Amino acid sequence: MPDILSHGQYDTVYNFLSLVIASQLFTALFLLISLPRILPRYRQAITVAIIVCGIAAYHYFRIFDSFKEAFVTTSVGGTGDYTQAVGTGFNEGYRYVDWFLTVPLLLVELIAVLALARKVQSGLLMRLVPAAALMIALGYPGEISGENSLRIIFGLLSMIPFAYILYILFVQLSKSLTSQPASVRTTLSRLRYLLVISWIVYPIAYVLPLFNAGGGDAWVSKQVGYSVADIVAKAVYALIIFSVAKAKSYEDSS
Amino acid sequence: MPDILSHGQYDTVYNFLSLVIASQLFTALFLLISLPRILPRYRQAITVAIIVCGIAAYHYFRIFDSFKEAFVTTSVGGTGDYTQAVGTGFNEGYRYVDWFLTVPLLLVELIAVLALARKVQSGLLMRLVPAAALMIALGYPGEISGENSLRIIFGLLSMIPFAYILYILFVQLSKSLTSQPASVRTTLSRLRYLLVISWIVYPIAYVLPLFNAGGGDAWVSKQVGYSVADIVAKAVYALIIFSVAKAKSYEDSS
Amino acid sequence: MPDILSHGQYDTVYNFLSLVIASQLFTALFLLISLPRILPRYRQAITVAIIVCGIAAYHYFRIFDSFKEAFVTTSVGGTGDYTQAVGTGFNEGYRYVDWFLTVPLLLVELIAVLALARKVQSGLLMRLVPAAALMIALGYPGEISGENSLRIIFGLLSMIPFAYILYILFVQLSKSLTSQPASVRTTLSRLRYLLVISWIVYPIAYVLPLFNAGGGDAWVSKQVGYSVADIVAKAVYALIIFSVAKAKSYEDSS
Amino acid sequence: MPDILSHGQYDTVYNFLSLVIASQLFTALFLLISLPRILPRYRQAITVAIIVCGIAAYHYFRIFDSFKEAFVTTSVGGTGDYTQAVGTGFNEGYRYVDWFLTVPLLLVELIAVLALARKVQSGLLMRLVPAAALMIALGYPGEISGENSLRIIFGLLSMIPFAYILYILFVQLSKSLTSQPASVRTTLSRLRYLLVISWIVYPIAYVLPLFNAGGGDAWVSKQVGYSVADIVAKAVYALIIFSVAKAKSYEDSS
Amino acid sequence: MPDILSHGQYDTVYNFLSLVIASQLFTALFLLISLPRILPRYRQAITVAIIVCGIAAYHYFRIFDSFKEAFVTTSVGGTGDYTQAVGTGFNEGYRYVDWFLTVPLLLVELIAVLALARKVQSGLLMRLVPAAALMIALGYPGEISGENSLRIIFGLLSMIPFAYILYILFVQLSKSLTSQPASVRTTLSRLRYLLVISWIVYPIAYVLPLFNAGGGDAWVSKQVGYSVADIVAKAVYALIIFSVAKAKSYEDSS
Ligand SMILES: CC1=C(/C=C/C(C)=C/C=C/C(C)=C/C=O)C(C)(C)CCC1
Ligand SMILES: CC1=C(/C=C/C(C)=C/C=C/C(C)=C/C=O)C(C)(C)CCC1
Ligand SMILES: CC1=C(/C=C/C(C)=C/C=C/C(C)=C/C=O)C(C)(C)CCC1
Ligand SMILES: CC1=C(/C=C/C(C)=C/C=C/C(C)=C/C=O)C(C)(C)CCC1
Ligand SMILES: CC1=C(/C=C/C(C)=C/C=C/C(C)=C/C=O)C(C)(C)CCC1
Ligand code: NA
Ligand code: NA
Ligand code: NA
Ligand code: NA
Ligand code: NA
Ligand code: NA
Ligand code: NA
Ligand code: NA
Ligand code: NA
Ligand code: NA
Repeated sequence: MPDILSHGQYDTVYNFLSLVIASQLFTALFLLISLPRILPRYRQAITVAIIVCGIAAYHYFRIFDSFKEAFVTTSVGGTGDYTQAVGTGFNEGYRYVDWFLTVPLLLVELIAVLALARKVQSGLLMRLVPAAALMIALGYPGEISGENSLRIIFGLLSMIPFAYILYILFVQLSKSLTSQPASVRTTLSRLRYLLVISWIVYPIAYVLPLFNAGGGDAWVSKQVGYSVADIVAKAVYALIIFSVAKAKSYEDSS
Repeated sequence: MPDILSHGQYDTVYNFLSLVIASQLFTALFLLISLPRILPRYRQAITVAIIVCGIAAYHYFRIFDSFKEAFVTTSVGGTGDYTQAVGTGFNEGYRYVDWFLTVPLLLVELIAVLALARKVQSGLLMRLVPAAALMIALGYPGEISGENSLRIIFGLLSMIPFAYILYILFVQLSKSLTSQPASVRTTLSRLRYLLVISWIVYPIAYVLPLFNAGGGDAWVSKQVGYSVADIVAKAVYALIIFSVAKAKSYEDSS
Repeated sequence: MPDILSHGQYDTVYNFLSLVIASQLFTALFLLISLPRILPRYRQAITVAIIVCGIAAYHYFRIFDSFKEAFVTTSVGGTGDYTQAVGTGFNEGYRYVDWFLTVPLLLVELIAVLALARKVQSGLLMRLVPAAALMIALGYPGEISGENSLRIIFGLLSMIPFAYILYILFVQLSKSLTSQPASVRTTLSRLRYLLVISWIVYPIAYVLPLFNAGGGDAWVSKQVGYSVADIVAKAVYALIIFSVAKAKSYEDSS
Repeated sequence: MPDILSHGQYDTVYNFLSLVIASQLFTALFLLISLPRILPRYRQAITVAIIVCGIAAYHYFRIFDSFKEAFVTTSVGGTGDYTQAVGTGFNEGYRYVDWFLTVPLLLVELIAVLALARKVQSGLLMRLVPAAALMIALGYPGEISGENSLRIIFGLLSMIPFAYILYILFVQLSKSLTSQPASVRTTLSRLRYLLVISWIVYPIAYVLPLFNAGGGDAWVSKQVGYSVADIVAKAVYALIIFSVAKAKSYEDSS
Repeated sequence: MPDILSHGQYDTVYNFLSLVIASQLFTALFLLISLPRILPRYRQAITVAIIVCGIAAYHYFRIFDSFKEAFVTTSVGGTGDYTQAVGTGFNEGYRYVDWFLTVPLLLVELIAVLALARKVQSGLLMRLVPAAALMIALGYPGEISGENSLRIIFGLLSMIPFAYILYILFVQLSKSLTSQPASVRTTLSRLRYLLVISWIVYPIAYVLPLFNAGGGDAWVSKQVGYSVADIVAKAVYALIIFSVAKAKSYEDSS
């Protein structure tokens, strides 16, 4: 963590964290209000999306408050430099707590909107959910450890379930895509790419400290990167899932 | 930002910020409670209106708190002058975060209430939404920069998507108006004027600092101007959209 | 504003402000929960009542906090005298912000429950709503001015729309009462008196400072008077409107 | 009020106050979620029950915060004695504000669940509601007065409406019980006893100070007694009313 | 309670407490949103599950705040050791308040989802609910007492209702399982094991202090153990109950 942040850096992180709160909270509310417009068979997917965005909003409220307390300035109008506060620090642990709950749920969301046969569905979930939980749990000790060797080992271990998830999503799931209505097949196929592109941000941010990419700017970029990735991987993702569910609802009932 | 605010100036900003909170929050709640009275095909528009007013309420809560902390007085009963606090400042960045989310949504709201053919609708949105996001994103570096030249350059760049949005709304959209029921055509046509008049406030406030219109009074006017424009461009606008949706619901079901 | 309040005076204002919060908030919730029991054609009136009580609850939360911070004591157990705090004051401005939003809405509420012909209804609203907004806006400069002459002039100006509202309510509206079902005619007629009696409290409180009715007791009475008048003019009024809407719903559907 | 509380005494009051918050808040939520399962004709009773428990939750939030601020310790880990804080005190006034709103409503709740003929119902309410409000209003000056004589006089005056309420409930209402379905008659009859037993706690707590039953333990017992009585008289009472409403709903629709 | 916590220990407890908040709160919201998808006859069970998770979320909010205030550091960035604060302590009492309300409700939840004959159901509840309340009430004096002998005596007393509950669940209830649809019989049977395994954590944590398993690590393990047990015994349990209710709803309506 940087010892010092310029006013501009402080405000950038501050405003991005607030942007994430607003995005997640109001995506959740939008989906909640729109839920009755979705056919019952797709509501499970949207309900999970609401919960995911809600959990993220909760954690970003906490992260925002933690950041606000952790960096302080003695300048008039807050226009000077910000240093680490006495008695409290920025708690990055919230991110792993959040992922531990939301990453498995993001996969549930995807599987649920496909509305596959009960057997296929539970087969996929039985593999994706534990893999996702394991991936996050293995990353945690590497993240909090100060030593590079541990960071590398746990990072590599965590890559195994990550690779497995990608394998399932691309090889196994693609078979199921053929059974989806034509109107949503392209969207669903693209959704997997959006998922990969936004998820890949997290392991990249994880390895950055290895290259000693320290200093305020690198740290600020990491916070901004996480913020944008979280908006894409949860809120934008949820809105696409919603549009798929709406299209399928429309098709099924006509 | 002014170094000093009189008690009257402080209270004026304070009360206007609180007025915006109440207006946005309770417009959102009013629309939420009234939603079931709207036909499903117009609910998307009202749902977006609820989200826009909700997001604005969220940001004004933050702006209000930021203002309250940023200016302080040592007078008994708070009746003396207010100066900038040590350790914190008034965060104008919230406004751009807010606009980035809400300005595109305001256009979605308008298009949604027209309930045009799916193709036409997505054609309009594909052009309006990115233009709106670009307009705000281009204004931001100009706003936070201390230099006049940058403010001018980014302001001019931001005017391009702004002009484009107005062109679409007046030239392209006016064709669609003819397909609207007679009962709402006038309202919808007027709504575009309300939109232009309230939106024009923002670039005007943006250029004011160029004329060195500094001092407490100019700053207070700017805050009051933003507050009134935000109420008109979001809450009043939402209520008009709602009345259009209600009139169309009535007509469609009779 | 008094420089000093006894413990008893402080607690009286404190408890009355809290009483208003509870009354407005839970009247709003009661109406919200009961809304489905009302026929759609009267729901607009009840929705407006919910919003009015909600806005009042919001403002009283602020007023309560403002009061709590504005008067402080150094006595153990808070049993001594309370004096004005350093750095903050009691913000009476919230009241005018509140009235500016709620007084027009109270008239909308009344007109809406009558469910008159669309033309008559909008004719009445076109006159009542601007008059109410004007009445409050004209009172504001008089209230915040320290000079008696300004207080008198603006007070008199504000009386003009006030008189106009009363004229419309008693002369014009009474004609419409004959078209109401017998079961609610008396209630509605009495409601106008309740409205007048509770509304008259506000101009009376406005002129009190002219008679130099200063000191803690006068001020405490004013706060208590406002509190009781706000409960009657919003919460009790809303419950009567609700009982009218329920009676009419019952009659219409039988 | 005691000058000093031991750690155990402080924690006892603290935990009981929190217990009341949880009980009232979640009873209200339980009833709110369960409301659609009740026939429309009994929903008024349950809606009032929700409001009563909601109002109580609101006041206990305030009482809890007031208590937390009013007693402080300088010991490490908070394990020492607690003394009255400088600048604030424990506000018992909230209780009377609460009773003034909820005690009349508790009687409305009871009458509403009986679903008597409209005439009989309004006849009973016209007598019970003002009596309840009067009972609380008369107790207040006695409670806040420091003098025993005033406490006795107002206590006796308050006993008159109290006795009147009990008379109505036992003599008048018992006639109405015969018209209730057999399945709920016993429950309703017992409910009156639960009401009396829990209500009697309040006048007893009122007279205790006369016997100089001072000191921390007496005060702690009073707080615990109030807490338990409030849970029984509002939350448990509401759940019994709910079970009556459910049984009657079941019977009416079969 | 430990006098000192390392930064890592502090963060571990902090993050686990926050994890419980998120788990309970969003399980409650998930169930609330999903409630309409359940047949009315199983909604009672899910409503109770919502209330249980809601009550737990409320208490964990309090526990989290209590922990945050109770341990403080003077290090920059909060990276040093944490010691007990002056003036406040960590309140474990919340746990017993929580259990007193939720443990009986967890049994109500289980019985409700079985949808047994009314007589059998109330027979089971009449025995399980008082036993659960007694078990918690008997554990409380042992927990707060500093003496080992009292801890042992009350622990043993508390074991009696605990054993009785297990007896009812395994011997009596197993008979009822045969009347459940085949599709949920295995799940329900396993649910009892999940219940036992998670419940057994509590008496184990209770006896640990007897073995003087003091020090920060033991205490941190206890907090983590409670957190995990609370998630399993309430949130995971609720989701399994929900899946049973969904399966039964599906079966009944087909
Ligand atoms: C592979 C890998 C990781 C993967 C993390 C991922 C994939 C996180 C996804 C988070 C999401 C999708 C959040 C929600 O918006 C870690 C744990 C950083 C450790 C290093 C190796
Ligand atoms: C053209 C232009 C701008 C336009 C801003 C607008 C049009 C903002 C609209 C905001 C609304 C509608 C808010 C919601 O209530 C900027 C960014 C100031 C930069 C200078 C040039
Ligand atoms: C005539 C008049 C006034 C009238 C105020 C009124 C009529 C306020 C009503 C408020 C209500 C109804 C609040 C809601 O509960 C002022 C502005 C004091 C200024 C002096 C002249
Ligand atoms: C007779 C009497 C009193 C009665 C109080 C009662 C009956 C209060 C009931 C409160 C309830 C039911 C609260 C809700 O849970 C007072 C005012 C103490 C004053 C002394 C005489
Ligand atoms: C037997 C026993 C106990 C049992 C406690 C239990 C069984 C608690 C269950 C809590 C749950 C299920 C919480 C919710 O998630 C005590 C009181 C520790 C005292 C020692 C003996
Ligand atoms: Na800060
Ligand atoms: Na830390
Ligand atoms: Na200030
Ligand atoms: Na700043
Ligand atoms: Na105070
Ligand atoms: Na002031
Ligand atoms: Na305290
Ligand atoms: Na006091
Ligand atoms: Na701390
Ligand atoms: Na303590």
